[in-house]
Amino acid sequence: MSDHENTTRVGQVKDITSLSNPIIKDIRALSMKKHRDETGTFLAEGLKLVIDAIDLGWSIRTLIYAKAQRGKDQVEKIAALTIARGGLVLEVSEKVLTAITRRDNPQAVIAVFEQQVMALCAVKIKPDDTWVALDRVRDPGNLGTIIRTADAAGASGVMLIGDTVDPFSTETVRATMGSIFAVPLVRISEKDFLAWSGKTKPLVVGSHLKGSVDYRTIGYQNQPVVLLMGNEQQGLPDTLAEACGKLARIPQSGRADSLNLAIATGVMLFEARRHLLDLGDATP
Amino acid sequence: MSDHENTTRVGQVKDITSLSNPIIKDIRALSMKKHRDETGTFLAEGLKLVIDAIDLGWSIRTLIYAKAQRGKDQVEKIAALTIARGGLVLEVSEKVLTAITRRDNPQAVIAVFEQQVMALCAVKIKPDDTWVALDRVRDPGNLGTIIRTADAAGASGVMLIGDTVDPFSTETVRATMGSIFAVPLVRISEKDFLAWSGKTKPLVVGSHLKGSVDYRTIGYQNQPVVLLMGNEQQGLPDTLAEACGKLARIPQSGRADSLNLAIATGVMLFEARRHLLDLGDATP
Repeated sequence: MSDHENTTRVGQVKDITSLSNPIIKDIRALSMKKHRDETGTFLAEGLKLVIDAIDLGWSIRTLIYAKAQRGKDQVEKIAALTIARGGLVLEVSEKVLTAITRRDNPQAVIAVFEQQVMALCAVKIKPDDTWVALDRVRDPGNLGTIIRTADAAGASGVMLIGDTVDPFSTETVRATMGSIFAVPLVRISEKDFLAWSGKTKPLVVGSHLKGSVDYRTIGYQNQPVVLLMGNEQQGLPDTLAEACGKLARIPQSGRADSLNLAIATGVMLFEARRHLLDLGDATP
Repeated sequence: MSDHENTTRVGQVKDITSLSNPIIKDIRALSMKKHRDETGTFLAEGLKLVIDAIDLGWSIRTLIYAKAQRGKDQVEKIAALTIARGGLVLEVSEKVLTAITRRDNPQAVIAVFEQQVMALCAVKIKPDDTWVALDRVRDPGNLGTIIRTADAAGASGVMLIGDTVDPFSTETVRATMGSIFAVPLVRISEKDFLAWSGKTKPLVVGSHLKGSVDYRTIGYQNQPVVLLMGNEQQGLPDTLAEACGKLARIPQSGRADSLNLAIATGVMLFEARRHLLDLGDATP
């Protein structure tokens, strides 16, 4: 055993095999929004994701790994870091991991993080910034995919307006593929969004089935842009539609009367940032 | 009771409340791929979807509706049509609907359809045709969303290469939002795809993380295009990448190393058909 391993291990790593252990019960309860809200924490799965989170400055509240991971360099480093920052490290059985993640073949490393959202007053918009604003988004998978897409397109963040699905649910976090740690999230009421956009005056482009403007004809350049997307069932309410500088639509053929929300957001986002994205390293 | 209702009803609509009824057991078994394959059928949920399917020429093998739907004009019409074409009509309890759909608050109308796929020899490609080809796609939700997106973008159909997830699974069918009935599907081995594309010579544009071409710089006009997408885990294998006329990449910033497959397909598809899509009815 290396010195390093000794240092992290002596009396500081709890070995747990029982599902009735109260710490495990608390972690399992994070599958419920109520418990996530009360504790202000959430669960993320996978070694790569946990490393990414640390690199991005997030703190681990509890690190949980499978026994077979003991001694692996990356895992030991994260364990040491977690303990150094006052977090808890648990070495658990496969059965416990399966119970926590509610999945067969669970990831071998998972962690509990503190939720972080950005306050609206901390949002400073500049030309070339693109924000995505989602009105009462309902589907956890859609939300996660949109956060991931916002990351890939270089958006500044995602605003969640009104009563949305919880961005820290396991399903959403999974769908973000790690972008939950990279993309600033702002939670905001419709009223506050309207006040903010009225005051800071970005170009608000609303996606609307009755939008009269082809989304490709809008001048997105040299100004901050907010892409405002309605929810899966109803689209944008009038109150929000009226706050839009442009109401845009994606031309469609075929019989589907609408695109999936995440797809519509992706298509519009890559259009809004078209002038800002290039391959850069194009020569392979 | 109207004459119409009498005609459809006399001895032809089975009233079922028991989960142990063998017909219900068979329908419930459609949640398993094995049973869908053996029977060549699948389940679709929702009155609107069932009406769309009929309008598009699909035949209902079994129509199932909640008791409360009895006497509703649209439901009675579909029931009459189903019987006239030799199908079965079941009036069932809420409990049975919940059991079949494995959902609380199930749709009140669901139906069993015969699976339809298009034979490769029936595919005739013309300039302005865009096909989506998916190599061994894994995620049912991704596949359903891609079929829905192909419909919205006016693609000619979706080719499923190799060992893909079942397009007729309940999760995929749900995600298509009815486009499963509108978008031709072709199932094809990698070998046959290579032979077909070698012979018919469409422009095959492969999405590839090492793609050297910006997807927006490709001339998609005046020729049939196949957008070839790799799967969620591995991207395109060399065998398929070598068959591509262009290997394309979507420029990305941020730290996410890849877009979700459905988003990448949507962004590329709307680019490939950019010159073919316009609002048409733009003036509201």
